[in-house]
Amino acid sequence: MPTTTSYTLTSTTILPFTDAVERVRTELQAEGFGVLCEIDVQATLHEKLGVDGEPYLILGACNPPLAHQALSAEPELGTLLPCNVVVFEHEGETRISAIDAERMLSIVGRDDLAPIAGQVREKLARVVERAAQA
Amino acid sequence: MPTTTSYTLTSTTILPFTDAVERVRTELQAEGFGVLCEIDVQATLHEKLGVDGEPYLILGACNPPLAHQALSAEPELGTLLPCNVVVFEHEGETRISAIDAERMLSIVGRDDLAPIAGQVREKLARVVERAAQA
Repeated sequence: MPTTTSYTLTSTTILPFTDAVERVRTELQAEGFGVLCEIDVQATLHEKLGVDGEPYLILGACNPPLAHQALSAEPELGTLLPCNVVVFEHEGETRISAIDAERMLSIVGRDDLAPIAGQVREKLARVVERAAQA
Repeated sequence: MPTTTSYTLTSTTILPFTDAVERVRTELQAEGFGVLCEIDVQATLHEKLGVDGEPYLILGACNPPLAHQALSAEPELGTLLPCNVVVFEHEGETRISAIDAERMLSIVGRDDLAPIAGQVREKLARVVERAAQA
């Protein structure tokens, strides 16, 4: 199972970065998430600041039925969407981290949204776990 | 000044939706933010679920120097980036909301990142305030 930090679900994997990214894409799809945006952090920081960083990709994932339910109840929730899964290299390891949707939604203070956050958290935990398996 | 909710800085504006979006773009640029991704929520939910919702756009904004500082200290922080500003119509009003970066970063539990979060919060508050002015 992924390791839980205060705000993420994280696994290290022996997969190379690009393979890990493909595995994350496959597992997101399997759990009903589309990838609505992608940010190549390494390329962006190089372009904007001339920084030579390690590979780092942000995948913005959205499960449309759950997002629709949540947005209908709480219109401003788009400020916290989509749910990100990141793949990056750090200290010689490839890591996969998903946002902990329950923890993130805790700042909204809407107990009625907890079941949706719980579903997203479980789905993303499975994505991280399966994607990290070599 | 924008209204503060538990996790956003929000203003309503008499501007039509498309004008508000353009104003947000201009003000983000003025505060040093690039828009790294955009999600047309209305179009996405229509395409995926057949839902006819109101106009709703998510702009994923990134201030590269501040993002680089934060990511260098906390590699998993990409799960919370970029900082979103959303523009949407709701109950006949156009609303502009930015994520409250201080509140969002509170879940990370890193006091040393508070000054960065504070800067982002101030910048986005100015974006929302100025963009909402008719």
